Amino acid sequence: MEGKRVAVGWAARDPRGVLSPYTFTLREMGPKDVMLRVLYCGLDHTDVHQMRNEIHLTIYPIVPGHEVVGEVMEMGKEVEGRFKIGDIVGVGCIVGSCGECACCKSNREQYCSKMVFTYNGIDVDGRPTTGGFASTMIVNHRFVVKIPKKLAPEQAAPLLCAGVTAYSPLKHFCRNEDNKNGGVKVGILGLGGVGHVGVLIAKAMGHHVTVISSSNKKKEEALQHLGADAYLVSTGTKEMDEAVASLDFILDTIPALHSINSYLSLLKPDGKILLVGVSPQDLQVNSSALILGRKTITGSFIGSIADTQEVLYFWEEKELKSMVEVVKMDYVNKAVERMEKNDVRYRFVLDVHGSHLS
Amino acid sequence: MEGKRVAVGWAARDPRGVLSPYTFTLREMGPKDVMLRVLYCGLDHTDVHQMRNEIHLTIYPIVPGHEVVGEVMEMGKEVEGRFKIGDIVGVGCIVGSCGECACCKSNREQYCSKMVFTYNGIDVDGRPTTGGFASTMIVNHRFVVKIPKKLAPEQAAPLLCAGVTAYSPLKHFCRNEDNKNGGVKVGILGLGGVGHVGVLIAKAMGHHVTVISSSNKKKEEALQHLGADAYLVSTGTKEMDEAVASLDFILDTIPALHSINSYLSLLKPDGKILLVGVSPQDLQVNSSALILGRKTITGSFIGSIADTQEVLYFWEEKELKSMVEVVKMDYVNKAVERMEKNDVRYRFVLDVHGSHLS
Repeated sequence: MEGKRVAVGWAARDPRGVLSPYTFTLREMGPKDVMLRVLYCGLDHTDVHQMRNEIHLTIYPIVPGHEVVGEVMEMGKEVEGRFKIGDIVGVGCIVGSCGECACCKSNREQYCSKMVFTYNGIDVDGRPTTGGFASTMIVNHRFVVKIPKKLAPEQAAPLLCAGVTAYSPLKHFCRNEDNKNGGVKVGILGLGGVGHVGVLIAKAMGHHVTVISSSNKKKEEALQHLGADAYLVSTGTKEMDEAVASLDFILDTIPALHSINSYLSLLKPDGKILLVGVSPQDLQVNSSALILGRKTITGSFIGSIADTQEVLYFWEEKELKSMVEVVKMDYVNKAVERMEKNDVRYRFVLDVHGSHLS
Repeated sequence: MEGKRVAVGWAARDPRGVLSPYTFTLREMGPKDVMLRVLYCGLDHTDVHQMRNEIHLTIYPIVPGHEVVGEVMEMGKEVEGRFKIGDIVGVGCIVGSCGECACCKSNREQYCSKMVFTYNGIDVDGRPTTGGFASTMIVNHRFVVKIPKKLAPEQAAPLLCAGVTAYSPLKHFCRNEDNKNGGVKVGILGLGGVGHVGVLIAKAMGHHVTVISSSNKKKEEALQHLGADAYLVSTGTKEMDEAVASLDFILDTIPALHSINSYLSLLKPDGKILLVGVSPQDLQVNSSALILGRKTITGSFIGSIADTQEVLYFWEEKELKSMVEVVKMDYVNKAVERMEKNDVRYRFVLDVHGSHLS
């Protein structure tokens, strides 16, 4: 039993954020827990910020990874029946919440004030939680979702953070019934990990999709490969002028300071900007632009566990394919470097089990 | 006929914004028009900004006034049946829109890109529109509402701008069904012309109302006279800390730069700030504060003509009383001076007809 609780992972030891092999002990299994063998895990920018202590809350050593697909190895007593050994399951960004507040009771546990992050959170035993860059994880079953049978596990990984981050606000805010004049027009701002699944999801929801990007570089990609309906270059004055008041929603995935006011002008009256990328500096917002058009800026953080389960079934039902590059664990530092240069289409997924960590 | 079209009003002639008597000719009556004898007209800060060209669009001489209560004197052919001579009617902030766009066709004509302001807009004859600081007005009937019988006309005046400005977003956004946990908690930020009717309306809608103000000065007023449930001093660190995550909505009436981030912290997850006061500088918004709580900043501009009619009936049905100070036309420059020192509870209403302008 003790043997099983030894996990082998890759951790960063200091703010340089370089990952290297690391052996550690998992907490004991509780009656509501699931132990899983990690198969695949996505890599995203949050992992890098955390590894480098850029959010100033990192506890070292840190084992990142919050797009985890694994196989059930063992279950606590109270979980029997929900899963069986060998089931393919997923864990996303959070692994705990109070279970009792208004958010927890209404499928919004991602907004619970006691929410626990999948790694670098504080676990039930008081130690830091550890993520999917490791052979094994022990997670409360409430935060474990089922991976649908038809989905390849490496395809499922990016859905557990990037996918649900795009799906949840599109589902919550962009309702067809809100638009009495036909098709909903959605802009996707930024074509990275979240943006690319955002295009696929918005299209599969039946919306008209415009990719908004700072240059023409991703035009073919957006229109040919991802199936967007239109492409708008945000630095083109004429194009931007012509697009004024043309969109109902903009999913804004840019994790940096940017000019919200110019995007507000693209919205029709009652249009909404849905922020999912955190800007380190305050955004500058023209109040008139909101008032004269009843426009909205709102934010959305990942999604609920129910949303996470839903996006997986949605992906299966609509037969969508995310674009991922699967690499072995010992490539992770190189993958970080390439991701920072946007040299990936669109997500690195680590083949954790295939890397023979343990 | 020509004689009737001569109006006597008070106009500002230059950016000093001092009002003085002014005689002018109204446009010709069209088949859809109503001519009204102005009885009362409210005075608000927008009037002053326009009189002084602070929005940089003023055409002099300017005859302000957009909270107009009058008596029907004459109607165009196509309006017969809708009103009769002597009916008490109201005109608010707008007197024209295209009638054909998505906004106009869905009771959102206040957001029509061809919307015409009640004064200092461009009228159908190409001349500037003139407002309620005058003996007479000619207005397209689509922008004329009925004043309910039980409402005193001077009571109705502030509803035509301030009233509908508070009512429309409270109705549009603060739906009881949005809150599954019982009473909706509404904060009213700023207790001026819009704020004071906002408190009355939100209470009459059945919400729990907290007035948020920078000092204790208006506490008794808010709790005793307006019937608010709670009072929060925004400069009190302890009070503000205790109020974190306690409100569902904040109606933000402050027409100046202010710290949105500190008010965002008062909202529960899924809470909304409804801006109705324009800040001349961009607001600074922390994107994390929106994202980690799915919080919203939105704006709302006056309300539709349907909303304007509705708030008048709501006021009658709920037997509400606005607090106004009625003054004669020749007091208007003094009234402006006092309003700027917040020396009015809460709205000056000009007794236009009683001032014997013509």
